[in-house]
Amino acid sequence: MNQSDWRERNRPARLERRLSFADYDHTRDFLEDMAGVSERLGYYPDISFGRTHVSITIHAEDGAECVDPARRALAGEVDALFARSQGASS
Amino acid sequence: MNQSDWRERNRPARLERRLSFADYDHTRDFLEDMAGVSERLGYYPDISFGRTHVSITIHAEDGAECVDPARRALAGEVDALFARSQGASS
Repeated sequence: MNQSDWRERNRPARLERRLSFADYDHTRDFLEDMAGVSERLGYYPDISFGRTHVSITIHAEDGAECVDPARRALAGEVDALFARSQGASS
Repeated sequence: MNQSDWRERNRPARLERRLSFADYDHTRDFLEDMAGVSERLGYYPDISFGRTHVSITIHAEDGAECVDPARRALAGEVDALFARSQGASS
């Protein structure tokens, strides 16, 4: 997980990252890949998107003071997906 | 557009609706259909989603006091997609 790319917030504890894409096709491809990761991990972060941006919020488990390692691993997977996506659009 | 299902808000002028789905597959199918509508109309509403909910925000054009008929037509298409989706999951 690229610490610098994610904002760590409290009340409730969560990680947030906003990603920008070249066009809607790249946004859709990323969301499609994210769906696969969510299903594999059985965890579904809150996702907001428009034509060329996606914002992801990974919440800590209910009542937890901070985001646990398993969900931080999802943040790492998001970083990897996004890096691949950027490689594809450059 | 089902007036009762959408919340009309101001500052900025927009329409909002939250939709619930039986499971993630239905959420994904709906989002896929929405992507097709967005591309056909060339308008990309702000969409937030989790495993079984989707929230859609249709903004008025920049500076407009209210959402114009063309974007209200998108709200109508969202209603139709959602109704079909509910039919598919019952």
